[in-house]
Amino acid sequence: MASPGQFWVEVIGIAAALLTTTSFLPQALRIWRNRSARDVSLTMYLMMFAGQILWLAYGVVIGSVSLILANSTALMLVGSVLLLKLRDRAPSAAL
Amino acid sequence: MASPGQFWVEVIGIAAALLTTTSFLPQALRIWRNRSARDVSLTMYLMMFAGQILWLAYGVVIGSVSLILANSTALMLVGSVLLLKLRDRAPSAAL
Repeated sequence: MASPGQFWVEVIGIAAALLTTTSFLPQALRIWRNRSARDVSLTMYLMMFAGQILWLAYGVVIGSVSLILANSTALMLVGSVLLLKLRDRAPSAAL
Repeated sequence: MASPGQFWVEVIGIAAALLTTTSFLPQALRIWRNRSARDVSLTMYLMMFAGQILWLAYGVVIGSVSLILANSTALMLVGSVLLLKLRDRAPSAAL
């Protein structure tokens, strides 16, 4: 089991994970509300999505609870931004 | 020193770090070129900046080379997006 020191290290990691992970939520909401993702970079979100799959693998191998929680949640939120961006690029069905 | 297994684990971590870190570069370039950051969320980049400071601290404590390299570089790139977004929000000097 984890020592008290390891516990506090994971508290820092989980706080970091919560901030960086949930940061994608206001971005997804902004695109949803404004119905525009013009200034949002598609390249960024494709790279971020691929990178977070690798971070998740890294977290599993080194046994970092913070990395696993952060990146599995972030993958869903980044995936949402990616879908909203792709929807914005797609031509309208009619008119 | 690291065992061969640890070496390959760090290769995955460094690949993950390169992708997620450098992903902010095309976003910064897009804002720069379009001269607009309207659809980019300020809340996202404030949370991301604060969170990456904590990830950097976490990486230092657990001794993860990948986390340290990723988050110190990302802090600079996320800081660039943040500055470009704040510049876009600032009222023009004249007219």
